[in-house]
Amino acid sequence: MIQPFDDIYFMKKAYQEAEIAFDKGEIPVGAVIVLNNQIIARAHNLTETLNDVTAHAEMQAFTAAANFLGGKYLKDCILYVTLEPCQMCAGASYWSQIARIVYGASEPKRGFVNLGTQLHPKTKVTSGILENDCSLLLKRFFIEKRNLN
Amino acid sequence: MIQPFDDIYFMKKAYQEAEIAFDKGEIPVGAVIVLNNQIIARAHNLTETLNDVTAHAEMQAFTAAANFLGGKYLKDCILYVTLEPCQMCAGASYWSQIARIVYGASEPKRGFVNLGTQLHPKTKVTSGILENDCSLLLKRFFIEKRNLN
Repeated sequence: MIQPFDDIYFMKKAYQEAEIAFDKGEIPVGAVIVLNNQIIARAHNLTETLNDVTAHAEMQAFTAAANFLGGKYLKDCILYVTLEPCQMCAGASYWSQIARIVYGASEPKRGFVNLGTQLHPKTKVTSGILENDCSLLLKRFFIEKRNLN
Repeated sequence: MIQPFDDIYFMKKAYQEAEIAFDKGEIPVGAVIVLNNQIIARAHNLTETLNDVTAHAEMQAFTAAANFLGGKYLKDCILYVTLEPCQMCAGASYWSQIARIVYGASEPKRGFVNLGTQLHPKTKVTSGILENDCSLLLKRFFIEKRNLN
């Protein structure tokens, strides 16, 4: 059976958000939040634009999804994000009680996995979806940035 | 020499923010951010009002302080917060590169200390300032909430 709404489908949507961030000169990370195969929030990193270290894609997506739902818990939702969440974003996911986190590229140094951030007991994790694309976009960003400076 | 602007002075200001949260029916946590003995941001927990798990006092204070400064790093600033920060807020402090975190009541279960959240290498921590007052306000809140339900 064809399943059009799989992890790759939604990660592509998160990737499109990352591309928007790229075009704005932001570190290219994008996120979407999905409930029952419907995207209820889209966001990309805006730390430079907003001068705000808390403006990671995931944080904005959590806020937007809760706003859409009219309640602060995201118990049946899935977060798709192009880069492994940091401690802050994983910590926020704990409070949101999100059902699943699906990420693309790994972030061994600042990601929540190696830093041991505690997720909510009900949160499941899938990694490596479109990993190469997500990672290449980040590498391209930092290479271009270095060449400009 | 009399030092009017000590940790207790600023924690009292954070406590006043916690009292505002209490009066709104929010878990009473307050925060201020100080630069050169001047308060540049005040905030209190607004998770219920905003329906947003990311609306902890510290997160709003980081955003407000960066907005005040016109830059996203808080390298010379001190965060005063009535309750030990959680993983999310400690994770945000990492990105802000804040110079110091001073907190009142400890939070052994969900606080960053026992959960091992990594702070920025330059961030120093002081705990236990007005601990009893900060803790009592939280206890009073949960007792009143239980009696209402």
